[in-house]
Amino acid sequence: MNHYDQYRIEKDTLGEISVPITAYYGAQTQRAVNNFQISGIRLPRSFIRAQGIIKAAAAAANMELGLLSGDIGKVVIEAAEEVIAGKWDAHFVVDIYQAGAGTSQNMNVNEVIANRAAEISGAPLSSHPIHPNDHVNMSQSTNDTFHAAINIAAAENIVHRLLPALTNLQQELDQKAAVLMPILKSGRTHLHDAVPIRLGQEFSGYGETIHTTSRHLEQATDALYEIGLGGNAIGTKNNVNPAYIPKIIDEVRDRTGLPFRQPVNIFQFMQNTAAPIRTMLVLKELAVHLIKITSDLRLLSSGPRTGLAEIILPPVQPGSTIMPGKINPAILEMTHMVCCQVIGYEAAVATAGISGQLEINVMMPVVAYTLLQSIDILANAVATLTAKCINGIEANEHICRHWMEASLGLVTGLSPILGYDLASTIGKLADEQNKTIKQILQEKGLFTVETEKALHPEEML
Amino acid sequence: MNHYDQYRIEKDTLGEISVPITAYYGAQTQRAVNNFQISGIRLPRSFIRAQGIIKAAAAAANMELGLLSGDIGKVVIEAAEEVIAGKWDAHFVVDIYQAGAGTSQNMNVNEVIANRAAEISGAPLSSHPIHPNDHVNMSQSTNDTFHAAINIAAAENIVHRLLPALTNLQQELDQKAAVLMPILKSGRTHLHDAVPIRLGQEFSGYGETIHTTSRHLEQATDALYEIGLGGNAIGTKNNVNPAYIPKIIDEVRDRTGLPFRQPVNIFQFMQNTAAPIRTMLVLKELAVHLIKITSDLRLLSSGPRTGLAEIILPPVQPGSTIMPGKINPAILEMTHMVCCQVIGYEAAVATAGISGQLEINVMMPVVAYTLLQSIDILANAVATLTAKCINGIEANEHICRHWMEASLGLVTGLSPILGYDLASTIGKLADEQNKTIKQILQEKGLFTVETEKALHPEEML
Amino acid sequence: MNHYDQYRIEKDTLGEISVPITAYYGAQTQRAVNNFQISGIRLPRSFIRAQGIIKAAAAAANMELGLLSGDIGKVVIEAAEEVIAGKWDAHFVVDIYQAGAGTSQNMNVNEVIANRAAEISGAPLSSHPIHPNDHVNMSQSTNDTFHAAINIAAAENIVHRLLPALTNLQQELDQKAAVLMPILKSGRTHLHDAVPIRLGQEFSGYGETIHTTSRHLEQATDALYEIGLGGNAIGTKNNVNPAYIPKIIDEVRDRTGLPFRQPVNIFQFMQNTAAPIRTMLVLKELAVHLIKITSDLRLLSSGPRTGLAEIILPPVQPGSTIMPGKINPAILEMTHMVCCQVIGYEAAVATAGISGQLEINVMMPVVAYTLLQSIDILANAVATLTAKCINGIEANEHICRHWMEASLGLVTGLSPILGYDLASTIGKLADEQNKTIKQILQEKGLFTVETEKALHPEEML
Amino acid sequence: MNHYDQYRIEKDTLGEISVPITAYYGAQTQRAVNNFQISGIRLPRSFIRAQGIIKAAAAAANMELGLLSGDIGKVVIEAAEEVIAGKWDAHFVVDIYQAGAGTSQNMNVNEVIANRAAEISGAPLSSHPIHPNDHVNMSQSTNDTFHAAINIAAAENIVHRLLPALTNLQQELDQKAAVLMPILKSGRTHLHDAVPIRLGQEFSGYGETIHTTSRHLEQATDALYEIGLGGNAIGTKNNVNPAYIPKIIDEVRDRTGLPFRQPVNIFQFMQNTAAPIRTMLVLKELAVHLIKITSDLRLLSSGPRTGLAEIILPPVQPGSTIMPGKINPAILEMTHMVCCQVIGYEAAVATAGISGQLEINVMMPVVAYTLLQSIDILANAVATLTAKCINGIEANEHICRHWMEASLGLVTGLSPILGYDLASTIGKLADEQNKTIKQILQEKGLFTVETEKALHPEEML
Repeated sequence: MNHYDQYRIEKDTLGEISVPITAYYGAQTQRAVNNFQISGIRLPRSFIRAQGIIKAAAAAANMELGLLSGDIGKVVIEAAEEVIAGKWDAHFVVDIYQAGAGTSQNMNVNEVIANRAAEISGAPLSSHPIHPNDHVNMSQSTNDTFHAAINIAAAENIVHRLLPALTNLQQELDQKAAVLMPILKSGRTHLHDAVPIRLGQEFSGYGETIHTTSRHLEQATDALYEIGLGGNAIGTKNNVNPAYIPKIIDEVRDRTGLPFRQPVNIFQFMQNTAAPIRTMLVLKELAVHLIKITSDLRLLSSGPRTGLAEIILPPVQPGSTIMPGKINPAILEMTHMVCCQVIGYEAAVATAGISGQLEINVMMPVVAYTLLQSIDILANAVATLTAKCINGIEANEHICRHWMEASLGLVTGLSPILGYDLASTIGKLADEQNKTIKQILQEKGLFTVETEKALHPEEML
Repeated sequence: MNHYDQYRIEKDTLGEISVPITAYYGAQTQRAVNNFQISGIRLPRSFIRAQGIIKAAAAAANMELGLLSGDIGKVVIEAAEEVIAGKWDAHFVVDIYQAGAGTSQNMNVNEVIANRAAEISGAPLSSHPIHPNDHVNMSQSTNDTFHAAINIAAAENIVHRLLPALTNLQQELDQKAAVLMPILKSGRTHLHDAVPIRLGQEFSGYGETIHTTSRHLEQATDALYEIGLGGNAIGTKNNVNPAYIPKIIDEVRDRTGLPFRQPVNIFQFMQNTAAPIRTMLVLKELAVHLIKITSDLRLLSSGPRTGLAEIILPPVQPGSTIMPGKINPAILEMTHMVCCQVIGYEAAVATAGISGQLEINVMMPVVAYTLLQSIDILANAVATLTAKCINGIEANEHICRHWMEASLGLVTGLSPILGYDLASTIGKLADEQNKTIKQILQEKGLFTVETEKALHPEEML
Repeated sequence: MNHYDQYRIEKDTLGEISVPITAYYGAQTQRAVNNFQISGIRLPRSFIRAQGIIKAAAAAANMELGLLSGDIGKVVIEAAEEVIAGKWDAHFVVDIYQAGAGTSQNMNVNEVIANRAAEISGAPLSSHPIHPNDHVNMSQSTNDTFHAAINIAAAENIVHRLLPALTNLQQELDQKAAVLMPILKSGRTHLHDAVPIRLGQEFSGYGETIHTTSRHLEQATDALYEIGLGGNAIGTKNNVNPAYIPKIIDEVRDRTGLPFRQPVNIFQFMQNTAAPIRTMLVLKELAVHLIKITSDLRLLSSGPRTGLAEIILPPVQPGSTIMPGKINPAILEMTHMVCCQVIGYEAAVATAGISGQLEINVMMPVVAYTLLQSIDILANAVATLTAKCINGIEANEHICRHWMEASLGLVTGLSPILGYDLASTIGKLADEQNKTIKQILQEKGLFTVETEKALHPEEML
Repeated sequence: MNHYDQYRIEKDTLGEISVPITAYYGAQTQRAVNNFQISGIRLPRSFIRAQGIIKAAAAAANMELGLLSGDIGKVVIEAAEEVIAGKWDAHFVVDIYQAGAGTSQNMNVNEVIANRAAEISGAPLSSHPIHPNDHVNMSQSTNDTFHAAINIAAAENIVHRLLPALTNLQQELDQKAAVLMPILKSGRTHLHDAVPIRLGQEFSGYGETIHTTSRHLEQATDALYEIGLGGNAIGTKNNVNPAYIPKIIDEVRDRTGLPFRQPVNIFQFMQNTAAPIRTMLVLKELAVHLIKITSDLRLLSSGPRTGLAEIILPPVQPGSTIMPGKINPAILEMTHMVCCQVIGYEAAVATAGISGQLEINVMMPVVAYTLLQSIDILANAVATLTAKCINGIEANEHICRHWMEASLGLVTGLSPILGYDLASTIGKLADEQNKTIKQILQEKGLFTVETEKALHPEEML
């Protein structure tokens, strides 16, 4: 095969360009490939799927309104459904760092569908009986479709992957809380001795934290359901038949099973990427809490001999290349790292968010990638955390009791009886003389039925 | 007066300490003053008020349960009400950068109330008939009260200051949108010529953005209403009468008029500062949007001669020390700077949020200051923005029309008629030859009734 | 006194305005006070001092070049020196959230000096024989002077306060490292048992971290020494005598004793606030490291009974309002909170940094406040950390040895002798059977002279 | 082929595990693959290369010291050199989100080299004559090698890719500055009319900004040259022959041609990832400046009809799917998005940085990926920016002059002649009456030879 065979010549407003002969994409996609050799990263499956959904929905709406002929519309939909199914993912080749509205990404799907639809209808690849702009992109612009695709992809992945993973995590934490409720241990504040607590109580707090944050994520997802399809370039709906808008949104709703709806104000939708920004902020909220929870679990499982060792994690891998037999909290550390990254991704999205100007935000591709990547790695990390760590956690009951009985926090129970000042003195003496609270009470003649009872951990719970 | 007269000697577990003779605070506050000479910044009025509310509420609940004698309870409440009213603000002297649970801050209010209550009851200052810990702090710990005080102060200031300011801003934007709806202008995407838009449409988008974000802020505020008073140090409610909890929360509800309630899970409340973190994230969301809106207004008002000059801002001050007659967008820049700071404050709160360990978060004072300061400067900036900028904005109608008629974005209207490829060529030629779209159409024999109509801006709206 | 007496009427381009009769500032400052009721925070002493230095230096340069009469110049300098000394701080009244170039702040110093200089020369306050713009601001603009004032104030405070505080901290850490070098303890990686280490080695790492970061701070400070005085509004030096530039910079050098110099490229200086941005990034670097170090010290001092308890911190205050006798790591927590705030402040400065447009950055006041506040609280926190925490730290030698001997990390010494696989098995058995490494070796007949020696902690150091 | 044939059984301390029969990696890598199904992203080529360099260098040092037999050492080096060359990249399969020290990543290289070295020496794959830990990892730990690999990979990519790209950008900006120096235009501050400036002066500022930031990046790179190879797990150099350290560092120096050296304090190296954190901060500094510069260029090129249009960018792709003929600032937007991401990545690294505890930072893999990815996308974006945007920029000279002559900033030239107050009035009148400065001067009888001259733009430059 010679060079002549490997490429075909296509053209756009800027002139001719060579495209691989087997590529379903065309001139504008190729130009983007040539221009943007930046990261090698492409928008994910979920985004391409959302693009396909929009293209199929638009063709259906346009056909129904008589704007697109049935012949063309039918094959466009068929091709779009193949895109939805992932059949042409290899032909989505634009770097995530591209021009700011995602025009190249939109042209990529337009060109792939146009060429594939032509092929389905029997025309040779790149003979262009079906036009990427005039037919596939009919009644659409990059601005409304790219933005809507972010929302669709994000909502689908939150609803189908992240929220279920969080629900599992919460249920596992709740179950663990129930199992560990009988285990008494010392509380710690400022990492210092505090009053007793139940190990299950700690876990119940973690469970509730995940529960609450999941509800916040649901609230944010509701904002993602507003999609401004039909707003066209800047929300003025120019070149768009008014009947098109409810139709395409119905189509998207049908194809996703999710309650997408028109925005209250289309200009608000176009001016910002407000719903992705908000969703990203909730993912940061989740990351902050997951860091707190996993850091606690790392502290509680520290040891086995030189740490707090109150809980035992299930081993998942050898922990060291030189310290034989070492088992580290690998899953917790992995989760923590994912959360560091998500915190960073939120900063990226917010920086993109303040960089919008006038009618659209031209940082949409980085918002798309960053948000979808965050959802993806959080969903995987949370599922892994649940399955490979939380559900195997066991209490080290003996150690829990050991620390609790040693804790100077027990002195707290004396305060209502002896007053803060005297109780303080007793606590301080115990610390200085390395004795138990009981010993000091005995030495001071204060060890009575009442004070003895007050020192019982069970009395404090 | 000699030195001996100016100080009195007080003591705590760590020993004796000199306290200014006129101070209502005592040993522990003084120790904190000595230890923490960091910023000179103290927690704000709203926080001290919240502390006073909690102390009054606790005393009332303790009295009702017979835990605190009526004689003492009555004067404690009276003193706490003076604190609520701001009478003793000068005696709240602990730097915001103090120990992490806010123990010194809690002791500050305990000591001030104890001494003032003693004074009210006729005892000499520092004779200590009323004990800061045993009486004023009864049934409380720093951990539950400091955290609850953050929530109370934040909720009050959001409900009474920030949300009303946002509602005003939104209404002003909506009104402005209505007034400016007849003004046609060129849209701009990528800062490049786009299809026409109404000036009022742009403002309607800004109004909706503020509206939506306000709703998110209300959702976050709802989480602030969960206050874990009675959880004591770590949520186990040790030393706390179960009946105390509903009573103190009722009292707080009565004194604030806001629907505070018990947390669903008290350990979740104690482990984190989740509601402040979430609220701060929504304030960041607001800041991101305000930066976008005010940046747009700065762009649109740029000029007067060398910029877009589509709108005219009301002048508020001479703009330059050397460029006579210059008027700058001062209020917009101020708002932008406030938002930069709020974005920074959110980063501070999130960093504090991941620094919590086990039963409490020991970064609470910085969370308190940062959140309350953010609410405060946003409320003031938004009110100023509304009153001194938005409500005086006028359209530069002549310039708006000028840009619109020049815009190459008009070519978009030709696309459905001529197809994308031919329309593209026309747009490109107009640009290269510096002609109008109409001229090119005429030269190409394409200027028909249909294409003429398609170029009318009104047709695109 | 009636209302008429309390105010005088002044005017600027926008018209008349009432100014408090005793105020040394004038119309433009008053207008800013009226416009910007945002935070109540004003730029700090260090900044006002820097403004005074610039005004004195400019007057001297202008006099020397014959641009400013000796009569006026002399009193302007005298008034400026009073500003430098802090005599008129109460008359600097503009909120930090003001218009973006700091015009109001510059007019504040211009007006105070003009009025005070007039007073010195015998003219009544506000008779205006000396003009704030024509005389005090001669050869200057807000843009070059405000920016230069940031650099001067920041450099002075870094050189005179923060760097010495860091040097003290480093020396204290180094000294502590020397004292604690004989103390052997278990290392911990992943919070899990690792090989032995000396307590002093840990501290030596902390000392070196502070040392290195201090050097980075010095490098950043070098960039602050570039000040574009004379660049005027946008770097084109319009209305500025070329001889003025070296003269004013010489004057600033003389008055500060610091090596300020002209920028390599004046436009680079004007376009950005690059040196403050860079300095702020190094302060974040410092904050990150201080959080790591203080978190370690909190871990190591955790206890006294339920934590690692390898070191003992000097007590500085009672730690709890309800847990009598509790002593918390107050100074470490305070430092951590300061660092959270500094991390947030850096985010604010960077956000301001990307918000600049064309010839200047109009977010300078927030950059000024945030940078100077960061330097200030870091300097105070570091000094407090050194004096009230680090220098009183003591080893809990007994506990250090206890953990070290228990550590499964000792098995590492066996790896070169027995191979990784066999050593792993031994480590795993010791963990599972809760035995010492030695016991397992004995049971397996592997306890030889060589393996016994390999288990000696001293052999591993 | 049946299932039995496709897998072989390997084992580690945790038991047996199935490994693909063709894989060069072994049990521990496979376990990591099974555990960490998170992002699908693996550490990049540059990192694997650095790991190979360290393994080859260690083997050489161990051989020279007689610790490793020549037979084994020789094939280990040969296999490591194949890894350096990229021959086995497909066998590096661990997700970047793995356990925190990168143990799995280190085992991946150990296992691949061990198996490949065995193969080279004629032994069957997985017969294990060469041990991944005992031979390939000899004298090393994950902690010292993973951290060193970050530094090596980062330094190589900065020195060979990012710094040259920045130098090219700076030279292009400088050249452009020279070419555009004759073009006069209006300056703009606050986006408002200011005094004249040369287009070339603006570009010279951009050039210097890149120059300065490059120098800062060089300073940061110097810190990367400190690599603590031989520190072993925690810096105590246990199991390490003292002569090994200088030898391995010499080897790394030879293989990279870069001046790597021992750390001043090995514990400082182990405790933190200080040099990567610092490097990342400088990359953020670069990102902030690139956003400013590219935002300026987007403003200056806004139009073509409805914007400032002072410069013309080279077209690189059609700009819109619906607005025919539109050309957007694609390369500038792409660069801006890369910078948003880098700002986010820095936040991720700093969050990882504060998450370290005691002897090592267990967030190293995310630091590695994030730093290397940042370097990579910045290098590509900067190169693309230079080649496809900056070097094709042309002045729109006609428009530049048009704006300049219209600018009210010209009034500044009158201030030294007429005084600030009178000049202000003239500026204000011109604005209000929409006249030129000259017209107002004439009307007021102030148009003299002197004032006429003062209005010449050239006089102000």
